[in-house]
Amino acid sequence: MPSVKAYAAQSATSPLDQWTIERRDPKPHDVQIQILYCGVCHSDLHFARNDWGMTVYPIVPGHEIVGKVTAVGSHVKNFKVGDLAGIGCLVDSCRECDNCKEGLEQYCNNGFVGTYGGMEKDGSGATHGGYSKSILAHEDFVLHISDKLPLEAVAPLLCAGITTYSPLRHWKVGKGTRVGILGLGGLGHMAVKLAAAMGAEVTMLSHTASKEADAKRLGAQKFVLTSSEEQVKGVTGYFDFILDTVSADHDYNFYLSLLRSSGTMVCVGVPSAPAVVPAMNLIFGRKSIAGSLIGGIPETQEMLDFCAEHGIVSDVEIIAMRDINEAYERMLKSDVKYRFVIDMSTL
Amino acid sequence: MPSVKAYAAQSATSPLDQWTIERRDPKPHDVQIQILYCGVCHSDLHFARNDWGMTVYPIVPGHEIVGKVTAVGSHVKNFKVGDLAGIGCLVDSCRECDNCKEGLEQYCNNGFVGTYGGMEKDGSGATHGGYSKSILAHEDFVLHISDKLPLEAVAPLLCAGITTYSPLRHWKVGKGTRVGILGLGGLGHMAVKLAAAMGAEVTMLSHTASKEADAKRLGAQKFVLTSSEEQVKGVTGYFDFILDTVSADHDYNFYLSLLRSSGTMVCVGVPSAPAVVPAMNLIFGRKSIAGSLIGGIPETQEMLDFCAEHGIVSDVEIIAMRDINEAYERMLKSDVKYRFVIDMSTL
Repeated sequence: MPSVKAYAAQSATSPLDQWTIERRDPKPHDVQIQILYCGVCHSDLHFARNDWGMTVYPIVPGHEIVGKVTAVGSHVKNFKVGDLAGIGCLVDSCRECDNCKEGLEQYCNNGFVGTYGGMEKDGSGATHGGYSKSILAHEDFVLHISDKLPLEAVAPLLCAGITTYSPLRHWKVGKGTRVGILGLGGLGHMAVKLAAAMGAEVTMLSHTASKEADAKRLGAQKFVLTSSEEQVKGVTGYFDFILDTVSADHDYNFYLSLLRSSGTMVCVGVPSAPAVVPAMNLIFGRKSIAGSLIGGIPETQEMLDFCAEHGIVSDVEIIAMRDINEAYERMLKSDVKYRFVIDMSTL
Repeated sequence: MPSVKAYAAQSATSPLDQWTIERRDPKPHDVQIQILYCGVCHSDLHFARNDWGMTVYPIVPGHEIVGKVTAVGSHVKNFKVGDLAGIGCLVDSCRECDNCKEGLEQYCNNGFVGTYGGMEKDGSGATHGGYSKSILAHEDFVLHISDKLPLEAVAPLLCAGITTYSPLRHWKVGKGTRVGILGLGGLGHMAVKLAAAMGAEVTMLSHTASKEADAKRLGAQKFVLTSSEEQVKGVTGYFDFILDTVSADHDYNFYLSLLRSSGTMVCVGVPSAPAVVPAMNLIFGRKSIAGSLIGGIPETQEMLDFCAEHGIVSDVEIIAMRDINEAYERMLKSDVKYRFVIDMSTL
């Protein structure tokens, strides 16, 4: 079993630091990837610090992984050594349930295997993520990456990109759709770019006036300052679709009031407080509140291809591996435009 | 202005009793109806007792109205004297907004005019409902009633019927759809009949074992006792669609857990407590919680035609007008199978 350099948290309170993990030798269907860049997702921090109470230590975070194929198993058909390749949030699933058969592995009825913090189906133990020199997975869970885009800026598409792309597609956002995007962070900035590329009329909803210029640079046609009564009045009952990327507690009812009838608000952020919604706020206007989780493998490939076609990448700030703990602190203050990406050559 | 015998509440605490209202003479587009039967909806009671804080007294409830046309205005094209006709929850709307143009008058952006407790758009004052000898409305808000069905059992279709029909249609319930119905009252018993007639597999979800026989008689293929851990386990992640007709406080999360991924739960009941739903319960499984309000005029006519075609009516208990206060008390105890209907000849 090859030893692989990695960065891990050994407990909820210890900073991430160097560690060595054992990866398996490639099995017949495995693709092995030398990791070149790994995006830093808010979930990485939640897992490292056991915010969700399910972390098994040591943990190696990272599920926005891009790199180069260095080895393939004997049965691998779709990848060869030297290809650019990526791994997102999933490295396995049951492949037998209705959802898996439909390419909705993220909703696998038997539970998908997360890229980190999951348990390998072959009983070989915990999965370890992209804060490491290399990774491998069954080819069915490996994505093709275009060479047309800057690789470091592609990495965040594997989580932030697909998490916003999937609900925009599922709810058929396109030309003529009035879309409101809530939150301008890692997810929100991708949502603006993607919804605009799909042809929608995109409005950024924010309580921070200084975000207007950036929102418009990213592709939003409109900006609504949610603390301005007058601006809010102009979009009450206005939107067909609101994508809510906010993880801080907020009043869902306010945003429901901005939906037109038959409109849908989709949550991809996870605040600590639940949504508290009187049935009346859904009944009057036949409104929906829904959730969406990352995306399945076929849709993730579709998203990557869409981004290559439209020249869409994430706005990133490249960091060295040793700066990860500082990056976490800055992320907690939303001090990043809009995604940290680790240059894995620095490990 | 013709005087019309009616039954009204004069205050939130006084029982309903005889009163006389003035109705206008038919205008050129009006259809005047002699009311033969009027269903008793839970909203009637809420309005009579000012439970929602918006009642203007005196109030004449009743919006499940069927009867015979006794006069038509000079411009009326679609009704003639002697026709069977009905009026539901709406008697007017702006007719100019996008929703009105789409036949979704119940979501009129300028506010629909309720059959009772609303304000006439011509400034002539409050609207009065079906606990009266006659009513009139613009022909655009009058429905055609088939003579194939028992008239007294058709009345509840005008509210209980359309309130359940509309979400079943909007969310495309049909052959192959696994539908759960929550609550076996006025709305729930219509939902079972309608969903079954649409070809869905219908399951009644109830915490009362004694309701099983009736649920199956009405058309449910399955019955799940929600207090039985074993029975609940069998339908966890099972339903494509749940129609929630319950107005008592309940835990929405429990029912969300019974949805399969991409499933939708639609609320038509209005509990006093709001839904409290962690975003995670929507995100894992891409689930939706939505609301739906009665239905528009074209869809109400479609529902009435569907019911005539499939021989669907409400299960009713006929009462005399003087028994309305006792009926309200019984309704509060859910002691009715499944809808009271007033024989208006008793007024």
